[in-house]
Amino acid sequence: MNYARPDIQAMTGYTPGEQPKGTKVIKLNTNENPYPASPKVTEAITRAAQAGLQKYPDASGTAFRMRAGDVLGVDPDWILCGNGSDDILTIATRTFVGENDAVRYATPSYVLYKTLAEIQGAVQDVVRYERDWTLGYEFVAPAERLKLAYLANPNSPSGTVLQPGEVAAIADALPCPLLVDEAYVDFADSNCLDLVRTNERVMVSRTLSKSYALAGLRFGYVVAQPAIIEQMAKVKDSYNCDALAIAGATAAIDDQAWLVENVAKVRATRGRLAAALGELGFAVTDSQANFVWAVHPTLSHEELYLDLKSQGVLVRYMRYDHWGDGLRVSVGADEQIDALLALLAPLVRGR
Amino acid sequence: MNYARPDIQAMTGYTPGEQPKGTKVIKLNTNENPYPASPKVTEAITRAAQAGLQKYPDASGTAFRMRAGDVLGVDPDWILCGNGSDDILTIATRTFVGENDAVRYATPSYVLYKTLAEIQGAVQDVVRYERDWTLGYEFVAPAERLKLAYLANPNSPSGTVLQPGEVAAIADALPCPLLVDEAYVDFADSNCLDLVRTNERVMVSRTLSKSYALAGLRFGYVVAQPAIIEQMAKVKDSYNCDALAIAGATAAIDDQAWLVENVAKVRATRGRLAAALGELGFAVTDSQANFVWAVHPTLSHEELYLDLKSQGVLVRYMRYDHWGDGLRVSVGADEQIDALLALLAPLVRGR
Repeated sequence: MNYARPDIQAMTGYTPGEQPKGTKVIKLNTNENPYPASPKVTEAITRAAQAGLQKYPDASGTAFRMRAGDVLGVDPDWILCGNGSDDILTIATRTFVGENDAVRYATPSYVLYKTLAEIQGAVQDVVRYERDWTLGYEFVAPAERLKLAYLANPNSPSGTVLQPGEVAAIADALPCPLLVDEAYVDFADSNCLDLVRTNERVMVSRTLSKSYALAGLRFGYVVAQPAIIEQMAKVKDSYNCDALAIAGATAAIDDQAWLVENVAKVRATRGRLAAALGELGFAVTDSQANFVWAVHPTLSHEELYLDLKSQGVLVRYMRYDHWGDGLRVSVGADEQIDALLALLAPLVRGR
Repeated sequence: MNYARPDIQAMTGYTPGEQPKGTKVIKLNTNENPYPASPKVTEAITRAAQAGLQKYPDASGTAFRMRAGDVLGVDPDWILCGNGSDDILTIATRTFVGENDAVRYATPSYVLYKTLAEIQGAVQDVVRYERDWTLGYEFVAPAERLKLAYLANPNSPSGTVLQPGEVAAIADALPCPLLVDEAYVDFADSNCLDLVRTNERVMVSRTLSKSYALAGLRFGYVVAQPAIIEQMAKVKDSYNCDALAIAGATAAIDDQAWLVENVAKVRATRGRLAAALGELGFAVTDSQANFVWAVHPTLSHEELYLDLKSQGVLVRYMRYDHWGDGLRVSVGADEQIDALLALLAPLVRGR
């Protein structure tokens, strides 16, 4: 017998990108940062571990919120910490969306939005991106019981960005709160943090997984007006962030010099990767993230993915209903990208 | 305007026990272990931090599940890891309970069950413990839309235990799955793990916060039959446990010698604490956990709590509707308990 809710039984569950064992694989499939985090993070974690973990952590991650507030120019009360920004997305969904309420998101985008809606028993109002990765009027259309819209900006898999003015217009026109998922924003030229100040319906979520090279630490946060934060705080697990993550995240956001240098390296490699893929015949979307979206006009993306995988290079093969497929390639270290290109060239030219 | 779901707006949220800043306070209010975790945990965490955190952690915590499976004598597929056992309770609630479904729990018990029901928009079917901390027939009574029952065993604040045979009878009689919350079970003489093997409706949750002295690490798990685990796995955040927590938890459960020694110390101090409180005139319930529940026949528990707090000793003052109040005192280190008793004696005798 199955006791799970029918919604849960019916869903397949979110499948994260492959995480192969072993270290020989060149992993360009889950948008991890190829460089280790700031050494100050390791030091802070080691200190916290040595201080002992027998006590509960600070339930609201005060140390992080204080430091992040300084860096971002917002009051700590405008920040809620999460166990990764996936936790923030979960908390927002549970705070705003009831069973049979509706959520809106665009496609192709982060596929977790669908999973979160399914778990919550919510109706999915899915808007397709235009072919130039702009969003049509449907994204702001009125709809019954619409309680939350998610917008990945920069978007994945495209790496494209809607400018803050466009997002402001979307937020103003939407009949519900808008969660701007800025997981990749540190690699972009603009962000939407300022919108939070003037529009209580805008929430901006961030993660330390990508630009701070801390996917293994699970730490994200959301910036929103205090009345919104207060409601979301009721929904989060009391101690959702552990003492090591709080210590590490605080040290990470404190080291802005490290961030600037890392982002510059990743962006430089991104430019080189995009140009090289273009030379190999791919259509490469201009990316503001730490990955590029590459579509080949004639070759099978799935076969390319499998060929690369068999030779030890993992990229992400993505197929979206009513849209098509392509390869999302994370910006690795230069030598990883060189290895990818060296394998890809004969695959592309040989056919 | 408030965009949160009406259920969320209406609730007050779970208030965890006070976590005072500073180290001078003697903290006997949140059932933390007074001793630091096994040194092997610190070593494992330091190693994991130094290995780099830029990659996502293993989504299912395989290393922990393998080691825990050995220790517990269950297959790793019967284990799901959580970001603390609160995460497990949240996952179970979301897996089995829809809006307007019902959950059942006893009172006085862990107050998070109420919060989880409120967040999920569920109806609460609350059964009062008998005065001797047994459970009446109401706990197994049929009820419409009843989808999940929570049972803390050992219970908090009482520290009392229902024997496995009693829990088996409850599980058999209940019309829904039963989550046996064994957060404190390592301090007890019995546990319900064996029930999972024979009853697919029994789930047993555990935490490393108490007996492994790792409240700051956030790690818990549930043992259940694979068909149940499979459904719950869809609901958990993909990467709900970070790489440091997985490494630390694996080292912790691997060091059973440390556990045995620690539990022996805590149990010895528990006996001494209970006897001393009895001599001071309290009625002390026989405890199988790392705390004792003390009720004084005449004095105000709230005043005692405040008097102790003003002198730097924090115990937990608990008041339950239709039940009464009392003091829940965590089993600290011997010198902490000595300090508590030294302060308490004049407070009790002076009135």
